[in-house]
Amino acid sequence: MSVEVLVIGIGSGDPGHLTGEAVAAMRRVDLFLVADKGEVKGDLATLRTELCRTVLGPDGYRLVEVPDPPRGPDAQRDTAAYTAGVRDWHAARAERYAEVVRREVGPDGVVGFLVWGDPAFYDSTLRIVAAVAEHGVELRTTVIPGISSLQLLAARHRLVLNGVGGSVHVTTGRRLLAEYRVDLGDVVVMLDGTLTCARLLGEHPDLEIFWGAQLGLADEALVAGRLADVLDEIRRVRLRLRAERGWVMDTYLLRSGPDPAPRPPG
Amino acid sequence: MSVEVLVIGIGSGDPGHLTGEAVAAMRRVDLFLVADKGEVKGDLATLRTELCRTVLGPDGYRLVEVPDPPRGPDAQRDTAAYTAGVRDWHAARAERYAEVVRREVGPDGVVGFLVWGDPAFYDSTLRIVAAVAEHGVELRTTVIPGISSLQLLAARHRLVLNGVGGSVHVTTGRRLLAEYRVDLGDVVVMLDGTLTCARLLGEHPDLEIFWGAQLGLADEALVAGRLADVLDEIRRVRLRLRAERGWVMDTYLLRSGPDPAPRPPG
Repeated sequence: MSVEVLVIGIGSGDPGHLTGEAVAAMRRVDLFLVADKGEVKGDLATLRTELCRTVLGPDGYRLVEVPDPPRGPDAQRDTAAYTAGVRDWHAARAERYAEVVRREVGPDGVVGFLVWGDPAFYDSTLRIVAAVAEHGVELRTTVIPGISSLQLLAARHRLVLNGVGGSVHVTTGRRLLAEYRVDLGDVVVMLDGTLTCARLLGEHPDLEIFWGAQLGLADEALVAGRLADVLDEIRRVRLRLRAERGWVMDTYLLRSGPDPAPRPPG
Repeated sequence: MSVEVLVIGIGSGDPGHLTGEAVAAMRRVDLFLVADKGEVKGDLATLRTELCRTVLGPDGYRLVEVPDPPRGPDAQRDTAAYTAGVRDWHAARAERYAEVVRREVGPDGVVGFLVWGDPAFYDSTLRIVAAVAEHGVELRTTVIPGISSLQLLAARHRLVLNGVGGSVHVTTGRRLLAEYRVDLGDVVVMLDGTLTCARLLGEHPDLEIFWGAQLGLADEALVAGRLADVLDEIRRVRLRLRAERGWVMDTYLLRSGPDPAPRPPG
């Protein structure tokens, strides 16, 4: 059996962020597979269901939730053990997906994954699909890009994510302190639950930050300025958002020194 | 007078790469401003015209080409002189745009810029709009993100642009030799007319490359493999594409050592 897999980037979940190609791909899908986890699970599931209803109609789609296997302890989170833990967990999840695909999808069926943002940025769906292929399911995979949160961040602040001819470095909160150097150029930080950038202020007091949370959602929030000046404001906004929705997803750009070119007025 | 400016990312120019938001924005535009240059000018103008005709109908849009001022010599291209040259040239271009906006657009008019890829990545439109605002034209700017070539590159190769929890560094051919280090993580190279990565092979013989040209166009080409093994093939494909279309726009990802997770089959 050979199954077609469409890995579809859906941006923030707002139907306006879908490309025409993503809409066409969603219409071809026989079965959507879903596994969310953690605190954002309920909200994301609701957003995804709304998106499917809007694009495909209330009876126009079939969606199966694949329960996540229990995740091993990774409290230590040193790099090697953490990475190995993530991989074991992906392998167990892949086995469950393979079972569902074998049971629920015909030989010419089309399976879809709806990925927040872009499947190319900080998302494990493509790795899971690769692992499913190793569990005896023959796959042909097509990826449809979507608007990622770092692009929404740039758009909302009317930013170009690089100096003239410069570089952009995209990293995680976990890696920021070890990696940060001024000559990296613009630095975008993803997956940082604790505003790690605050700990750069001692060595880099003039950092500028362009911060955004819940990008593309109704409670979207933006703050920009000298990090030293706006850090407390960002902390307050994060607390408020978390109190209201139960979770915060934020991302930010760090820039060293004055912006080489002014941003257009908004 | 206050003019609304919509800076709209259009991806590769394929109508399927437009988001719903980008289509809605295009429908609101009274006047599109355009300035292309160099060898790709003719082709891009044709693609843009086709896009407008497809989305807005043959009589549904108005488009003004703003002639580019002559660009000063930058043959030396040392960093300071090059950067200053680019800025002077943007300022001169901004003055011409400001004239056109004052002459052609009413006080509640909507001006649109169609930007290849995403306005946040290696594009000067936002800097030019900021400069127009400094020429006495009151502006409100909204940015609509688009699918960038690096996202198409990742999608076509079914890649996640970072190791598990890793980093992504986006840079230019001009900066690659000075910046490259294994610990940057995945490195995406834009605007490299001469496959500068070949000069990294001496120190980094095991580099992997995922290369793409004319992404999203009919003559799209992809090559992936060990850089040492596929460099000649990439050179041949570049020559063929240039012979056929008159220009090549390519981008590539460099990855050090074995891929940490297999890609799903295509």
